[in-house]
Amino acid sequence: MNFSSKLLGHAVNQVSQLPGIGKRSALRLVLHLLKQPKTQTLNLAEALTNLQEHISYCKGCHNISDTDICEICANNKRNKQIICIVEDIRDVMAIESTMQFNGVYHVLGGKISPIDGVGPQNLNIESLVEKVKTDTVEELIFALSSTMEGDTTNFYIFKMIKAYNVKISTIARGIAVGDELEYADEVTLGRSIINRVPFENSLKI
Amino acid sequence: MNFSSKLLGHAVNQVSQLPGIGKRSALRLVLHLLKQPKTQTLNLAEALTNLQEHISYCKGCHNISDTDICEICANNKRNKQIICIVEDIRDVMAIESTMQFNGVYHVLGGKISPIDGVGPQNLNIESLVEKVKTDTVEELIFALSSTMEGDTTNFYIFKMIKAYNVKISTIARGIAVGDELEYADEVTLGRSIINRVPFENSLKI
Repeated sequence: MNFSSKLLGHAVNQVSQLPGIGKRSALRLVLHLLKQPKTQTLNLAEALTNLQEHISYCKGCHNISDTDICEICANNKRNKQIICIVEDIRDVMAIESTMQFNGVYHVLGGKISPIDGVGPQNLNIESLVEKVKTDTVEELIFALSSTMEGDTTNFYIFKMIKAYNVKISTIARGIAVGDELEYADEVTLGRSIINRVPFENSLKI
Repeated sequence: MNFSSKLLGHAVNQVSQLPGIGKRSALRLVLHLLKQPKTQTLNLAEALTNLQEHISYCKGCHNISDTDICEICANNKRNKQIICIVEDIRDVMAIESTMQFNGVYHVLGGKISPIDGVGPQNLNIESLVEKVKTDTVEELIFALSSTMEGDTTNFYIFKMIKAYNVKISTIARGIAVGDELEYADEVTLGRSIINRVPFENSLKI
């Protein structure tokens, strides 16, 4: 793309480095900003800079938090002996919004993915093992998405902690509530039959 | 959405004000930035701020330009007597990349659209009329997209300048090169038959 203005070209290049935003979308976004009051751009730039400069992570669960210990970890009513292992803050938010989990989280910060250059040493796995070793952890719940990378990460962590006396479970896979059986894929349907639950359980929610 | 961090929430809110980006996409973009080196965010913020603070427009054609007069208007080899009327810089870039136009442009900065609160007074129409009045303009070419708003804008400008001795044309509508006839819509196909051109013309490009 050939821009008549270097300033514009530079801004478009920067915006187009975001994932899923190509040069054309970036130009559309930048031209939109130019039509808005100046303050909108300045606020956006300030919010991003502030976030990057002052971001901090909870020392307990590695979730993004403005305080040293996040609200969930600091909450005395949460059961610290049940730890749910998730990839990032989006999963924490998703599980929290169900209001069905009263334990705490451990945010890995990603999944093991050799193709993206992410190994176990890039994730918060060591501190998890440390927790299992030293704290009185009762149960770990794997809640990573069931992809190749998620399964690999689950298995890696499983191997690291199977020597310790801790119950390890994974979230249930099955037919989504409201879904038609005939459109479900075979693996999911198969698993949902193998892992069937007593009918009374389905009445709980 | 309930964020565990106010900084994060604020950044997501700001990003989600961009068109076509919802809260979830905004969160994805912001989390992506957090995983990148700090400099990427700072560069992005700086580029946007710089653009907004130092943006300037060509005094001739109102296109975005780092100089008072843009490269196209300053080029002596371009024919200043033929003016192509476009909506914004994207159209200028699209036409320039065809390398088939040797005139200059006039960037309106939008289209008349009462529903969006855009009237003729918000566009660079007055300076266009001024050009037609005072300069030796030979031909105006309407190159707005053929929507309700585009047609309205064309007609408004047409009425403002029809009193002056200037040729007014519009870019050709027809079947796109490479398209199958059977899938073309009736209006376009109809127009392409009415406005048929001598076969020799089609050999020029």
